[in-house]
Amino acid sequence: MGYPLRTIQEDGGAVVILDQTRLPRETIFVVLRGLEDAANAIRVMQVRGAPLIGATAAYGVALALQEGRPLEAALATLAATRPTAVNLHWALQRMRNVLQMAQNQGLPPESALATRRDAAWNEARAIAREDEAANAAIGRHGLPLLQAIAARKGAVSVMTHCNAGWLATVAHGTALAPVYAAREAGLDIHVWVSETRPRNQGLLTAWELAQAGVPHTLIADNAAGLLLMQGRVDCVIVGADRIARNGDVANKVGTYLKALAAHAHGVPFYVAAPVSTIDFACPDGAHIPIEERAAAELGAGDTVVANPAFDITPAILVSGIITEFGIHPSHELGSIRS
Amino acid sequence: MGYPLRTIQEDGGAVVILDQTRLPRETIFVVLRGLEDAANAIRVMQVRGAPLIGATAAYGVALALQEGRPLEAALATLAATRPTAVNLHWALQRMRNVLQMAQNQGLPPESALATRRDAAWNEARAIAREDEAANAAIGRHGLPLLQAIAARKGAVSVMTHCNAGWLATVAHGTALAPVYAAREAGLDIHVWVSETRPRNQGLLTAWELAQAGVPHTLIADNAAGLLLMQGRVDCVIVGADRIARNGDVANKVGTYLKALAAHAHGVPFYVAAPVSTIDFACPDGAHIPIEERAAAELGAGDTVVANPAFDITPAILVSGIITEFGIHPSHELGSIRS
Repeated sequence: MGYPLRTIQEDGGAVVILDQTRLPRETIFVVLRGLEDAANAIRVMQVRGAPLIGATAAYGVALALQEGRPLEAALATLAATRPTAVNLHWALQRMRNVLQMAQNQGLPPESALATRRDAAWNEARAIAREDEAANAAIGRHGLPLLQAIAARKGAVSVMTHCNAGWLATVAHGTALAPVYAAREAGLDIHVWVSETRPRNQGLLTAWELAQAGVPHTLIADNAAGLLLMQGRVDCVIVGADRIARNGDVANKVGTYLKALAAHAHGVPFYVAAPVSTIDFACPDGAHIPIEERAAAELGAGDTVVANPAFDITPAILVSGIITEFGIHPSHELGSIRS
Repeated sequence: MGYPLRTIQEDGGAVVILDQTRLPRETIFVVLRGLEDAANAIRVMQVRGAPLIGATAAYGVALALQEGRPLEAALATLAATRPTAVNLHWALQRMRNVLQMAQNQGLPPESALATRRDAAWNEARAIAREDEAANAAIGRHGLPLLQAIAARKGAVSVMTHCNAGWLATVAHGTALAPVYAAREAGLDIHVWVSETRPRNQGLLTAWELAQAGVPHTLIADNAAGLLLMQGRVDCVIVGADRIARNGDVANKVGTYLKALAAHAHGVPFYVAAPVSTIDFACPDGAHIPIEERAAAELGAGDTVVANPAFDITPAILVSGIITEFGIHPSHELGSIRS
C-alpha cells in the first residue's frame, strides 16, 4: 500500500481496515469477518471519521447478510454504534433502500438471498467509491482558496482539528483534501495540527501528513488562539460529523473554540464534507445529539469527568462549506438538495 | 500537613517544597539547599504558578547568600529560569532593594554579611506571608460574585483553567480563593476543571479540590466551548502570569479560547491575581514575552512541535480583575498603583 492509502478494502468476502487505535505507533490491519466485527470497529474507533464510519457500516450490512442475519437487526446494531455522525445513518438508509428493492423482485428464496447479498456488497462498494470521488472533488474545489492565499503571501498555513484526512474517509480526506491538492499543485503549504484531546487524533493527522511529505507542526489544542492572534494561520479547515440544514456544524469537540478564535482575527474558517454529512432533516445544531464518551479517555483515574466528543459551531462562524459540488455559504445549503 | 496546605516552608536554613511534577500521583517533598536547587525547581516546574514562583525565587536569593554567592549573579540565575511570570522579577527586585539597603549600613564586613543574610530570609518570609494574605483577600473579594449567582440560581458552577489554586501560590490560591471562600460560606459550588494540555495542570486542580471536598468535573480543554454554549457554566475564573497596564492578561495557554467562548455566551470572565502580577511597566499584551517550552511536553516523538506556554487575553474580554484590594475593571488598573 503506497500513498494515497485506502482505509478500507475488500478481501474475498471479508473487509480489511487499518486499526486507527494503533496508529501512529503501529500499522496494523484488521480483518472484519461479520457484523459484530464491523460494529465493534466503529464503536471502539478502529475506524473513525464520519465518511469512513458510513462506509464501514455499509460493509457491515453486507457482512451481516453474508452471515445470514436479519437485515433490520443488523441495521439497528450498526446504527447504535455512535450517535453523532450522520453519514452512518445515511449509509444504512441507502443499504436498506437497495436491499428492499432487491427483495421485491419476486425471485425464488435461494436466488433471492444471493441477489440480496450481491446487492449489499455492490452498494457498500459504491458508497466507498463515491466517497473517494467526492473527496477528490472537495480537494479540487478547496484548492483555489489556498492558491489565492499563496498568490498573495507566497505560502499558506492551514490550521486543522482532529483528523479529517484520508484516515477519516475511504481516501483523500475531507479537510485535508484541499491540502493534498495544494501540495500536488506545488504550493508552499504548511499545516498546524492540533493534538485533539482526549483521543489525540492530531497524531493521526501528523502521521498522514508526514507520509505525504506535507510540512506540519503539532500544537496543543490550547495554543490555537495564540497562533491565530499572532497572524500565523491563514485559513482553518475542519471536517464535520453532521451539518444541520441551517449550516450549524457538529464536529470533534474543540472545533467551536477554533472557529471563535478564527472569527475574532478575521481568518477564514471552512468546513469540508461530502453532501452525505448534511442532515437536511435537522433544522439546527441544537437538534444534533452529542456523544458522551467514557471518562477513561481522559486517563485521570477516578476523577469525575465530562467527555463530550463533539461540539457545535454556529453557521455564522463558518465562511463556507466545501462539498463535492463546490463551496457553499452556510445559508445556501438548501439549494444543494434541490 | 492538613488542608489548607502551604506549598513552601522553611526548615532550618533550607526550604521545603511540594514537588508538583509528582502530583497527583505522589506527594513528595523536596528540600532546596542552595541557589541551584531553587532555580532548578522553578525551571522544571517542581514549583509553578506565578505567585509561588515569586516566593521560591525570593527564598532562592536567601539560599544563595547563605552559600556565600554574589547577589547579582544569583538574581540573574533566578531571573533566567522562566520568562513570562512577572512575579518572579517583582520578587527579585524586592530582594535586591532590601539587600542594597542592608549593605548601606556601614557595618564591619562579618556582621554586614550576617545582617544581609538575615535581611534576605526576612524578606523572603515577608513575600511568602504577604502572598498568603493577599490570596485570602482575593477570596473575600471574589466571594460576593459567587454568592450573587448562587442567590439567583441556588448553585454556582465555575470554570477554571490550569491550576491557580493553593498549589500555584504560597496558600489559598488566586482563581480558586473565591471558590474556597464560597465553599466555606456554605454555597453549593461546583468547578469545571480543564485538563490544561500539554502539562495537565488541571489534574493538580482536581487533586486540590478533592482534598478540600469541592465537587468538580474534569474536562478536555476542547470541551469548554460546548459547556459554555449549553449554559452549564456560570462564571469563569482564571489566574494570571502577567497583567499589562491596559488590562491584557497573560495566562496559561488556552485561557484566551475560554475567554472568547465566555464572551460569546455572556458568561462573566474574571482574572484573580495579586497586584504583584500587574506589570505597570508593560503597556499591553503584545509586549509580554511568551515562553516557548520543549517539544517533548507534547509527547509526540519526533514530530515538529510548537509549544507556547501562555497566551494573551485582551482586556476587552475580561469582566474584572480580582486583587487583594477588590475587583477592578481592566481599564482602571492604573488607579491601583497610585
